[in-house]
Amino acid sequence: MIAEIIAIGDELLIGQVVNTNASWLGEQLSRVGVPVRFMTTVGDDGDDIRAALQHALSRADFIIATGGLGPTHDDITKKVVTDFFEAGPLAQDEKVLAHIRNTFTRRNLPMSPVNEEQAVVPRKAKVLWNANGTAPGLLFEKNGKYCAVLPGVPFEMKAITTSALLPFLQARAGGQIIRHRTVKTFGVAESSLAEKLAPIAEIEQHCKLAFLPSYFGVNLRISVTGRASEEVAQHVAAAEKIILAKAGKYVYGYDDDSLEGVVGRRLKEKGATLALAESCTGGLLAHRITNVSGSSEYFLRGYVTYSNPAKIELLDVPQEIIAQHGAVSEPCALAMAAGVKKMSGSDYGVAITGIAGPTGGAPDKPVGTVWIGLASPQRVSAKHFLFLNDRLVNKERFAQAALAMLYRALHEAEYVPE
Amino acid sequence: MIAEIIAIGDELLIGQVVNTNASWLGEQLSRVGVPVRFMTTVGDDGDDIRAALQHALSRADFIIATGGLGPTHDDITKKVVTDFFEAGPLAQDEKVLAHIRNTFTRRNLPMSPVNEEQAVVPRKAKVLWNANGTAPGLLFEKNGKYCAVLPGVPFEMKAITTSALLPFLQARAGGQIIRHRTVKTFGVAESSLAEKLAPIAEIEQHCKLAFLPSYFGVNLRISVTGRASEEVAQHVAAAEKIILAKAGKYVYGYDDDSLEGVVGRRLKEKGATLALAESCTGGLLAHRITNVSGSSEYFLRGYVTYSNPAKIELLDVPQEIIAQHGAVSEPCALAMAAGVKKMSGSDYGVAITGIAGPTGGAPDKPVGTVWIGLASPQRVSAKHFLFLNDRLVNKERFAQAALAMLYRALHEAEYVPE
Repeated sequence: MIAEIIAIGDELLIGQVVNTNASWLGEQLSRVGVPVRFMTTVGDDGDDIRAALQHALSRADFIIATGGLGPTHDDITKKVVTDFFEAGPLAQDEKVLAHIRNTFTRRNLPMSPVNEEQAVVPRKAKVLWNANGTAPGLLFEKNGKYCAVLPGVPFEMKAITTSALLPFLQARAGGQIIRHRTVKTFGVAESSLAEKLAPIAEIEQHCKLAFLPSYFGVNLRISVTGRASEEVAQHVAAAEKIILAKAGKYVYGYDDDSLEGVVGRRLKEKGATLALAESCTGGLLAHRITNVSGSSEYFLRGYVTYSNPAKIELLDVPQEIIAQHGAVSEPCALAMAAGVKKMSGSDYGVAITGIAGPTGGAPDKPVGTVWIGLASPQRVSAKHFLFLNDRLVNKERFAQAALAMLYRALHEAEYVPE
Repeated sequence: MIAEIIAIGDELLIGQVVNTNASWLGEQLSRVGVPVRFMTTVGDDGDDIRAALQHALSRADFIIATGGLGPTHDDITKKVVTDFFEAGPLAQDEKVLAHIRNTFTRRNLPMSPVNEEQAVVPRKAKVLWNANGTAPGLLFEKNGKYCAVLPGVPFEMKAITTSALLPFLQARAGGQIIRHRTVKTFGVAESSLAEKLAPIAEIEQHCKLAFLPSYFGVNLRISVTGRASEEVAQHVAAAEKIILAKAGKYVYGYDDDSLEGVVGRRLKEKGATLALAESCTGGLLAHRITNVSGSSEYFLRGYVTYSNPAKIELLDVPQEIIAQHGAVSEPCALAMAAGVKKMSGSDYGVAITGIAGPTGGAPDKPVGTVWIGLASPQRVSAKHFLFLNDRLVNKERFAQAALAMLYRALHEAEYVPE
């Protein structure tokens, strides 16, 4: 079974919105053994939508089209696809209407006539329940081929895909299995990692290996295709084993693991607590830490000490340190880390002080400079990094470097006090 | 002139990489007056690349294909496109080879034979100089139609597009001008906004109006196509004027404006300062505020008071309030807002306390409940919201609701103290 994805919306063609829906769908379909051969993006234009559907029907068995199901005049997808599949007439669905009414009532918002219009669905299509929004998904069928039409809002599209489409597709994948396993690393450059893993052919005996570098580390993706799930699993495991033997020290997790999630698990295992002091990252690290459900078990508090008075007052950083060395300095990072640990009573304290840019740099402290302090139960230390990116990417890399330091501290053998 | 974009690479189809190249190209082409009607993504597969080229040639005048020009065995784009346009034979280009050698020398890296292979180019294609990498771009021509093939690395693709393609395209756009203007709103549902703007035909006399809803508000995009830039500007202004007259109270900005940026400008104008107290958003609001360059002029500090002791100790929230009403309550939000203003000495204090989920909900305080407190120079107030999303989206919506409250407070007429 081959799938094709059609994304609909002028905003995609003029680059106002990046098409993240297509890549998410591609990943999910691949996981259930249904390869995607083509993805097409078209505008809110009847002729172009029809052309895309025609091509897709000629080369795929299952089409997923997203976008253009909203309540306003520029949303034409439902009408065009209904006509294309001759699935009309359109008629009001009482269950969907009740759901839409209920959604507005629960949110305490007024409902307008155009929203009632969203409960109008083609008679010959199946409604795909949208628990998270007002536009129902629709499933059309023609000569044994299918076309699912989903709202473009990612949260709604994902929920419908997961609950209704993936089980349907998996059951029809024809016994083909595709398995991807991503091994996640940090602290090593792509080329060095490739050298450490050489010869790649040894790993690729029964799989494909892809290197996916980003600012946050290099992910290694193992892909195996086959028909027997046990054999496929063995091939994945064999490749993973070689990677771990050759580069295991850089590996922090797998697949959906995030560094903040792995760090959180480790803190929970240790029964340890964490507090943060952020200057230039402005709360980003605390945001990432608290993206993990259950983080309240180990995360006590964060300070966003953007001003110098805040650093002195809240973290007990001696005024002389800032006067002598500046806020972006090793002594200040050490004092902030020790201070946040002390003031919060946590087991671990992490502090970030740097210059995200674009302004604020100096010849000896250029934009991208950061000092990261870490107070553990054993000691207080600080590290210097220099990244050469724009403000937002610098913030991201600073936060990632701090998480990496915390990860190492949580995983290293206990120190003998110096 | 109509353009079409083809993105090539297995990593795009299986969702390992999000196709940001296509949206960037769409935006750039639109700006020089060349509309994109279709975007296609295909894998590293000769048949599928040929099929995509065939379709594109049938409906567009200018094709931009990206990806698959790297030095490894799975990069087949150059060979396939050369054959398709009968632009061979392939032969080594001495200038390109010298550039590749020089690139490796400058980076102090060893050059391998596969990199020499990148200097082999089709005789009948024009080389598009890649100053930032080793894979040259190529421009093919057939019956007055063009196909540019560019490396997939965004940094290299963008440089070649900007230097070589956009001037070429602008000169051939036939004097057509496309202008987009985005009017950004919050605090109004898409359907209500459509009602307030009705009849849409009045706005659409000389433009197209698109509704772009997201969790953070509804953006309205005005698009005008024409030949005289003054007339196009007048049509944009006329549509904008009607929108402002009918729904101006919901408009906070235009085009690249963000709510945090607009709020920051307003704080600067007022010479006022801000401090934040976040519980369930865990630092996200501070992160957004500090994404704005220059935010240190008005942003003093943030507290991420995840635990109850932190709320009591750092924000001076009376213990009895938490004991009686719970941390997610109107009294607690009021106390947090007043506390953060007092403790930091800021002019404005914003506090967020809620339940992001997925755990922690209760029948009377379900997941998605949030209380937002705001202390201004005039008064302290709090508002309740209920969002029904997952943890990360709830965090985003809580932060957005808080920014919206702050925006309103910064823009309302001065209160008479009660």
